[in-house]
Amino acid sequence: SGNFFLLAGPCAIEGEEMALRIAERIVEITNKLQIPYIFKGSYRKANRSRIDSFSGIGDEKALKILRKVSETFDVPTVTDIHAAEEAAMAAEYVDVLQIPAFLCRQTDLLVAAANTGKVVNIKKGQFLSPESMVFAVNKVRDSHNNQVILTDRGTMFGYQDMIVDYRGIPAMKQFDVPVVLDITHSLQQPNQSSGVTGGKPELIETVARAGIAVGADGLFIETHFDPGNAKSDGANMLHLDLLEGLMTRLVEIRKVVNTF
Amino acid sequence: SGNFFLLAGPCAIEGEEMALRIAERIVEITNKLQIPYIFKGSYRKANRSRIDSFSGIGDEKALKILRKVSETFDVPTVTDIHAAEEAAMAAEYVDVLQIPAFLCRQTDLLVAAANTGKVVNIKKGQFLSPESMVFAVNKVRDSHNNQVILTDRGTMFGYQDMIVDYRGIPAMKQFDVPVVLDITHSLQQPNQSSGVTGGKPELIETVARAGIAVGADGLFIETHFDPGNAKSDGANMLHLDLLEGLMTRLVEIRKVVNTF
Amino acid sequence: SGNFFLLAGPCAIEGEEMALRIAERIVEITNKLQIPYIFKGSYRKANRSRIDSFSGIGDEKALKILRKVSETFDVPTVTDIHAAEEAAMAAEYVDVLQIPAFLCRQTDLLVAAANTGKVVNIKKGQFLSPESMVFAVNKVRDSHNNQVILTDRGTMFGYQDMIVDYRGIPAMKQFDVPVVLDITHSLQQPNQSSGVTGGKPELIETVARAGIAVGADGLFIETHFDPGNAKSDGANMLHLDLLEGLMTRLVEIRKVVNTF
Amino acid sequence: SGNFFLLAGPCAIEGEEMALRIAERIVEITNKLQIPYIFKGSYRKANRSRIDSFSGIGDEKALKILRKVSETFDVPTVTDIHAAEEAAMAAEYVDVLQIPAFLCRQTDLLVAAANTGKVVNIKKGQFLSPESMVFAVNKVRDSHNNQVILTDRGTMFGYQDMIVDYRGIPAMKQFDVPVVLDITHSLQQPNQSSGVTGGKPELIETVARAGIAVGADGLFIETHFDPGNAKSDGANMLHLDLLEGLMTRLVEIRKVVNTF
Repeated sequence: SGNFFLLAGPCAIEGEEMALRIAERIVEITNKLQIPYIFKGSYRKANRSRIDSFSGIGDEKALKILRKVSETFDVPTVTDIHAAEEAAMAAEYVDVLQIPAFLCRQTDLLVAAANTGKVVNIKKGQFLSPESMVFAVNKVRDSHNNQVILTDRGTMFGYQDMIVDYRGIPAMKQFDVPVVLDITHSLQQPNQSSGVTGGKPELIETVARAGIAVGADGLFIETHFDPGNAKSDGANMLHLDLLEGLMTRLVEIRKVVNTF
Repeated sequence: SGNFFLLAGPCAIEGEEMALRIAERIVEITNKLQIPYIFKGSYRKANRSRIDSFSGIGDEKALKILRKVSETFDVPTVTDIHAAEEAAMAAEYVDVLQIPAFLCRQTDLLVAAANTGKVVNIKKGQFLSPESMVFAVNKVRDSHNNQVILTDRGTMFGYQDMIVDYRGIPAMKQFDVPVVLDITHSLQQPNQSSGVTGGKPELIETVARAGIAVGADGLFIETHFDPGNAKSDGANMLHLDLLEGLMTRLVEIRKVVNTF
Repeated sequence: SGNFFLLAGPCAIEGEEMALRIAERIVEITNKLQIPYIFKGSYRKANRSRIDSFSGIGDEKALKILRKVSETFDVPTVTDIHAAEEAAMAAEYVDVLQIPAFLCRQTDLLVAAANTGKVVNIKKGQFLSPESMVFAVNKVRDSHNNQVILTDRGTMFGYQDMIVDYRGIPAMKQFDVPVVLDITHSLQQPNQSSGVTGGKPELIETVARAGIAVGADGLFIETHFDPGNAKSDGANMLHLDLLEGLMTRLVEIRKVVNTF
Repeated sequence: SGNFFLLAGPCAIEGEEMALRIAERIVEITNKLQIPYIFKGSYRKANRSRIDSFSGIGDEKALKILRKVSETFDVPTVTDIHAAEEAAMAAEYVDVLQIPAFLCRQTDLLVAAANTGKVVNIKKGQFLSPESMVFAVNKVRDSHNNQVILTDRGTMFGYQDMIVDYRGIPAMKQFDVPVVLDITHSLQQPNQSSGVTGGKPELIETVARAGIAVGADGLFIETHFDPGNAKSDGANMLHLDLLEGLMTRLVEIRKVVNTF
């Protein structure tokens, strides 16, 4: 359709009911707007600041929910993995394996993901330049897997802020990979004294519009029908009720950009 | 027209012929595209890295050329001032006084500019947050001048790079001032060992599209029919031949954004 | 004596009594410790965030107090200037003219300071690399004045923090100038929402010790007998009662470094 | 002895002969200077930019060499681990398990390291504030292991530079853990276009002196008798011949600091 694609869903899979409910609504919106859609959900959170932060409902249980979402709505799914030995397991359930930003330099993890034959979505480290992501791409390609996506989730700016460097989108497109902008994590405010990462959700549309205008191939967004009570990353999640309006506007910008 | 406005011209006024030639072409383009236009040219460059860098052809001579451009094409003009005592002089020749980014904290300069009654365009310091520009705005308003524009020209990112923080555009619009994005200086690469600031002009369109998409009210751009031989800032100037295409595309994005 | 030298005093000259009282105590300490001393005081503050911030008691009045301090205690003095036309005036009263960090790229100001024949102390812009300060040094030298000092006052790190890059001290010493570390302004926390720059005075000794250990030739410090009631920059000033202890420890580190 | 302690050795264990040769020389120096010493060597490099970078000689082979060094010279050893399942294996051979900076947020890895009962040395992420390292410390302590060390290896400053924030040393000491300064990796120049991280080894002494002056409890340094031919990180390694002189000077600074 010439449209951008969307990776969206809750941060973490908290249960089957919530996953299906969120997926159903996003499928409805993306069908209407002809946006290719991939359901996103983490089955485990491995890098919380605090050991008592929510880290998941159990790996297999969460992965089965991802599969159920896929079968119910006939959509592909994406989840993130945190260690090489998770790759094969996760690959049995999902279509896209995502490499967290902190881990994008871990060769073993990239190679394990590549070896599953699944699409590998690598998040750009907050500490890496867009240009240096070519080395991560090449680790996957050198493992005989050409299905790589790069996702920008912002770059460290002082200790407690992140910034999106939009120059990185054309820079990473030069590696002949689809480039996604993660409009949720780009707005994080890390290193808060509470140990819980903060955010600025009122800027979601600003970050997203700029991304589509400069040619991002896809968007990544975490959304929930009740962000205030989501078990992780609530600070930046978009309320599900706001998704259709946002997507509608972004599709309009995309249509114009497609004519250039 | 609902369109964005444009501050554009050469970096420095090198002579009458070049100023008129550049203005003529920009007027042609902006008339066609219904873009409100302000001719930009510096009559003196006060902050070059090197004492032997080009700093101007003489203040009065350059200011008279600015006036001639204004009269010839019936367009307003903007120039930058660097010391309080320049304000009154420059105000006799131009419509908008611009405060350089390095100087946006200098109270005397802001007040002197405000007291001329002209529009004051304040560039955001590379070292200042968008939010803190409210203090600069208030220095002008407290001097009984409500005609303030804020221009973002990028923010320091390490020693040798700059980045545009697009969150700053909605942040500064909250001060009830028009917000301009300077797509030329945002691409500077400062602190180069040569003492001549470098740039990445191939990214001009990326920076500009994102700015219009997030609601910038105006754009600032330096352009020249021969950037390679311009006497200052050639590294980032847009070739005049590329301006119409760029503006045409940006106007299309603006039209969509106006419908939101 | 092989010791480092010290530029110290209140931020702003608030009156004769306070200036003399602060100078007297510092002279006592520096005589005892054999630290060459230059009394520091601003006669005007030109770059406050807010127009209602304290900006001075009157230029001439304050400059006369600087001269009185110099004559009373037989010490040289330093003050900062903000516009080219201030250079000659200030030079009649003080021994060292200081160029504020925001203004270190302003050629006219550097040349005017140089032309007085006084020592010129240039603060490194928060947005400049140590290496690029050679261009500021050369602007003074090209004006036939070889008495240049460079002072590092920290570098922008995100919007609301500054950091001292100690690599800059040896880097700037390579220009054959004395290099000073400003341990007061290095601890600023700029861009606070109040419009009043904050600070972390408990870290003064940390910043200072590292500076002496890496070979800084001098230190710059603002001190007051009542920092909480100082009319500007109170947030980072050292209490005068703490100065002797701090200097004593730093002199000990210096003695060791001198043996290397 | 009141002295700082030293973690030092080659970046990677390239073979037994080189490990013993380096250890022998460092033991000689540290015995002479009464510096408590821990031999450092990586048995595998998991986060090279390029898949063809040297990644090791085989895990078990390298770990056995670490044990041999320990037995030969009666010194403890430290190595880094990259996945939770490596913890138990490495713990059989070494005394200190080191968590790489990129991985310092990975809860599973920290807990696995903690559960071995060995000392856990956590490197501060280049993207983390010193203050937020308390969360990493607590993950180890909450696993009933109180032997934690924190190591600062610099903080991201723009894409291609790192900077040491010396305020972080007292900040991390407040968590009641020994704080080490890594003077090798602090000087990295990441994100170079070659994919090989560069460096500035001439600044090693600058970085180290400042660290000891502000109270670092230990230093981490990579050293080799032939840095130019080391198989990884040669760009920043100290030549082994320079180690004694450097340590001698640092011990002198430490002695002074100990008197404060």
